[in-house]
Order: sequence, then C-alpha cells, then structure tokens
Amino acid sequence: MDIQKLVKPNIRSLRAYHAEEIPCKVKLDANESPYSAISNQRSAISLEKNLQTLNRYPDPQATALRKLMAKELKVKPGNILHGNGSDELIYYMITTFGGSVMYPVPTFSMYGIISQALDEKKIEIPLDKDFDIDTEKTITAIKKYRPKLIFLSSPNNPTGNCFSSERILRIIKATSFSKQHKGDSRIAPTSSLVVVDEAYQSFSNEKSFLPLLDKYRNLIVLRTLSKIGLAGLRLGFLIANEEIINEVNKVRLPFNVNSLSQAVAVEALKNKKQMRSYLTSIISERKRLFREMEKIDGITPYPSDANFILFRAADAVRVYKRLLAKGVLIRDLTGVIENCLRVTVGTPGENTVFLRTLKQLI
Amino acid sequence: MDIQKLVKPNIRSLRAYHAEEIPCKVKLDANESPYSAISNQRSAISLEKNLQTLNRYPDPQATALRKLMAKELKVKPGNILHGNGSDELIYYMITTFGGSVMYPVPTFSMYGIISQALDEKKIEIPLDKDFDIDTEKTITAIKKYRPKLIFLSSPNNPTGNCFSSERILRIIKATSFSKQHKGDSRIAPTSSLVVVDEAYQSFSNEKSFLPLLDKYRNLIVLRTLSKIGLAGLRLGFLIANEEIINEVNKVRLPFNVNSLSQAVAVEALKNKKQMRSYLTSIISERKRLFREMEKIDGITPYPSDANFILFRAADAVRVYKRLLAKGVLIRDLTGVIENCLRVTVGTPGENTVFLRTLKQLI
Repeated sequence: MDIQKLVKPNIRSLRAYHAEEIPCKVKLDANESPYSAISNQRSAISLEKNLQTLNRYPDPQATALRKLMAKELKVKPGNILHGNGSDELIYYMITTFGGSVMYPVPTFSMYGIISQALDEKKIEIPLDKDFDIDTEKTITAIKKYRPKLIFLSSPNNPTGNCFSSERILRIIKATSFSKQHKGDSRIAPTSSLVVVDEAYQSFSNEKSFLPLLDKYRNLIVLRTLSKIGLAGLRLGFLIANEEIINEVNKVRLPFNVNSLSQAVAVEALKNKKQMRSYLTSIISERKRLFREMEKIDGITPYPSDANFILFRAADAVRVYKRLLAKGVLIRDLTGVIENCLRVTVGTPGENTVFLRTLKQLI
Repeated sequence: MDIQKLVKPNIRSLRAYHAEEIPCKVKLDANESPYSAISNQRSAISLEKNLQTLNRYPDPQATALRKLMAKELKVKPGNILHGNGSDELIYYMITTFGGSVMYPVPTFSMYGIISQALDEKKIEIPLDKDFDIDTEKTITAIKKYRPKLIFLSSPNNPTGNCFSSERILRIIKATSFSKQHKGDSRIAPTSSLVVVDEAYQSFSNEKSFLPLLDKYRNLIVLRTLSKIGLAGLRLGFLIANEEIINEVNKVRLPFNVNSLSQAVAVEALKNKKQMRSYLTSIISERKRLFREMEKIDGITPYPSDANFILFRAADAVRVYKRLLAKGVLIRDLTGVIENCLRVTVGTPGENTVFLRTLKQLI
C-alpha cells in the first residue's frame, strides 16, 4: 500500500503553485510594490501592544479592518469578507459554490490550481487577439457548461490590460438572476456568480465594478492589499451582497487573519496619503518604462493598466536568463504566452537598471 | 432564482464555527495562554525590519521557522508543513485525501465543521465513559467505513484527558500500511491516516507520538503555537513522513503564513526559557484549580492533561451565566456534554477570581 493510493485522483496530478526564491539584486518578478506601505516608527509603537496580547486569538470578524475598508470602498462592513490573501477567498468561493469554474486564459494561475485542488471542473476560454474577453465563445460556453463561478481578473494578470467593461457587463447580465423573468431565456440562459478580480485596480484608469453591486446580485468583487505595498500581510477582501457573504463566511476558518496583519493593515489604511503617492510614482514609472521599451529593437511591450508590463522578445528565454545573470529578476512567461516576459514596475532606480541591462542584451 | 440554489447542499446546512467576542474582565473561555510568549522590546526592534519589507510576499517555504521547529521537535524540516493555524492544515488534509473522516466525540469541533464544508462524510464514534477511545467500536467502524483520515486529539478538547497511548497505537496499527502483509487482514483490515492532534501536548505528562513517525508511515502529528502564548499569530504545524508532506503541500496556498507571523514566531522560539516558565506556571495552577474545585460542593472537575479543566455542575447554564455576570467568561459546553463547563487555566490572580466567584455562586 502506498500513500499515493490514499490521495484523491485530482490531487495526484496536481502540481502546486511554484513559488521559489531566486537570488537577485533587482526583484521585478512578483508584481509587488517596490515600497512598503507602512511608515515604520508609528507602527513599531502600535505593534508593541499587539505583541503583548498575542496569547489571544485574533478578532474573528476583523471588525476594525473591515470597517475601514468599508469606508474606503464605499460599502457596508457586512458586504466585506476578509481573507488570508485573495487566494484564500478563491478557495472559499469554490468550496461554497462548487460546480464548474470558468475563466479566460491566460490569467491568474490560482483560479485553475484551486479548482483542481477542490476537484471542480475547469473551463478555460482563450482571450481574443487583443487579450480581451471573447464574448461569443464565453456566452456559448456558459450555456453549455453552466458554471457556478466565472473569474475575470481586470486588469488581467499576466497580460496587464483591463477587459472591456461592456464585455464584462454582458457576461454579468447573461448570468444574472436579479432581473430574471420566467421563460425569458434571452435575459438569463443560466445563472452564475461573476467574480471581477480587481487586484490591480489601483493602477488602472478604468472604473471599478463596486458601484454595480447593488444592481447585480450575481456580482462579486475581489480586492487585495498585496499589490499596493503590503504583500507580506496576506490580506484580501471579497465584496458582495450580504447573502453571498453569509454563505461564503460559513466555510471561512474563524481565525483566518492573524492579529498582526489586522493591526498593521489598519495603521496603513489610516495613512492613505503615502500609499497614494507611491501609486502615482508607480503609474508614472510604468509610462516611462513602456515608452523606453518601445524604443528598443526586438522588444514589444503591451499597454498596461497594472503595475507590470508584459512584453514580447525574440528569444525571450535567453533575455530572461541574461537579465538574471546581471541580477535582474523578471518573470518568464514563455510557457504561457509565446516569447513573452513580464516585468514589474519597480523604483525609478530599479527600472533604470532593468532598461539599461535590457538594452545591453539586445 | 436565489443565491441559495447556487450554494452546494452541504454548505446550505452548515453552521459556521461560532466565535464571538463576549465582553468580560477575566477571559477563561478559549484555552489561550494567559501570557504572550514574546518579550516585547526585542521583538519590536526585529519587527521594524519586517515592516520595511512588507511590500514583498512572505517566504513561501517559511524556511527559518520550519528549521527552528524541526530542531525543536527533533525531525527534519522536510517533515514539517506550516499552516495558518492547525485549522488550515485540517482543511488541507481533508482536501488532499477526501473520503470519510472519523473522529471520537466529543472532540475539537473543527474536524466536523471542515469535513462538512468540504462535503466529506463524518463518522463520529462516542468516547467511552472515561472519555477514552472506544477501541472496539472504532475498529469496527474503520472496517465498515474505511475512513481516509482519523483525527485523535490527545489531550482531547474539551474533555482534557489524554487518550490511552495503547489505544491510539492500536488504531494506528490497525490502519497501518507500512507492515502490511498480503492476506493478513488481522494486521491491516484497511488503510487510513491517523492524525494525532497534539495541540495541548505541552501541558501533558504523556509522551508525544512524534518518535513513532519513523515506524508508522500512516501517522501524522499536529502541533500549534496557539495554546502556548501565540494564538494571535495563527501557526500550526503538520509533522509527517515526507511523502505525506509532499502531497498535502500541493493544496497549500503558497503564501499561507504571513511575514510577521513567521518573524515573531522565530523570535519566540529562540527564547524558549520564558515559554517554559509560563508552561510550568500553568501546569502548577491547573493542579491548584483542580484541588480547589474538588472541594466545592456540587462541582466535579475532570482530571486534565491540558491547559483547561472540564467540570460538571448542577444547573451548569446558570453557573455559566452567573460567572459571566460577575465578569468571568468560561465556556458553556452543556450542548456537548450534559451539565458541563470548561474553564481555561489563567494567571494565578485570574484563577483565584474564578474560584472565589464560583464558591460564592454555589
């Protein structure tokens, strides 16, 4: 008898998300902010009190944090569920609703990994040539597979673009059940929950889908603190109508967000001014990076609404390896999109090193 | 169309773990240590560096922490999987192996809640009259239901006792596949993984099952920092043979333990001297509590190997409510064991307040 025989078949063939630490001088591989969003002295002081009470379990409701986020996002605290990163909230949604899970590809890899871990069918719809949603194919697949959950990351990782708002809206409407009339199959051929993952929303000019929560009961929005300077805390938020929150909350581990992450996030959110100035710098640097990359022969950057830039390069693997040899770590996506690499926007200094090194290679 | 119709049937009937904050002066309800296991000044200094790098994702392998825990537990780092509390590791084990989940009752409620959340069959075997494992009933049920996972919390929550080591061993042997011989159904009527949850091991005189990992490939041990003064960090550890670790690791979210919890736990584990003196104090106070409670008419405390005492009281709900009215919060277990309440061992001062208040009520 072997351990393998006790493992569920869907897990046997699963390969875990690969996250290894590669030594480098300039780290531009993981879509992290180059700036920690927390001012040090103030937080060290506030943390002392938290260290003294670490013998106690965390606030299971994350009351203070959810209240602050609610104010920030202009929703009620009852519309917010807190997660140990968005990853955990994706786990919880699939656990709660099950059924087939649909998403366009390429996109954030965790939708597929978690679906497989939880033994749910994955329905992957290729994006069109502009990396936008292929609406016709998607609607057809919705009718065929009737997925319970549809994940739309916008801005999308790793392509960097926002999906067209009209196309997202068409999918929300096609699967909506708030205005469904009996026998009117044009309005709602099937019902699904549409999860708009706005992890990179802070870097985008497109509007958030949050104001549409009142109108569409099948809409769920994901947000995270990971891209705006607090990846180390692991904090994601699911925003939806209260009836959805109540169901997903049933499968949430009661103490899923630890005390220190709650406390530091509250501190950080009280000081939005600094966070905003970092965002402005990152957006301005993204524009500079794009302009400079466009000038390099053999490099084709794609427009981005996020804090990273996808680009095409002839002999991309060689470019990736030679950048790394010079201490600059970016993300090799050649296994996902032919000849493509992804660079995270860093500090002005880091971006200059990246550009200089890239120019020397080409 | 209603949201309910999209929810999986097993979730519809699920009630989430109830964790609400009840205001009180003396908090003896949650089996927390009364002492934070981290000395403040040193940690505040070390945390500053961590705050400066919170823009980075945590170490997905928790390398430093697992190395320290490995030394502490006398195993290899490759035998340890880190979780956002043991709760998360229970989630991951059931996700990985599925199948029926067996455990004695009453016990830690999360085994059942998580099994239901993940839609796996729960097989609950009542403990015998001494709160020990009913070996015959358990072995019979193992043959009948062939569970993939058997959870044994020892010391057991909420009863406080250790199960007899011989009985635990009999179950491990009955489900072992390391020494299985063809056709020899006496040795291994079926194969299961036996999870000995040693959350309260630090307070017990019984031996840990960790040294048996080499001998029994179907054994898994759970440990946590939650009961020894670091509940706020959310840190649990699964210790098992590497082939089990590798499978469960596939369903682990890559960044499941945040940077601050990793850093503070490393600090705390470097200073085991203080932690040990706290444990000594808690064990000595548990003995005093037990002696004093035995003297109170109408109160029957059960012997405990943990940091809490289960006790029987005539009109237990009234006792619970009147203690709370006086500011002393303990746990009402009357819904689980008739007329039973559970009190966590606090500081000497807290225990004295509890005893005095209890005496006044009876």
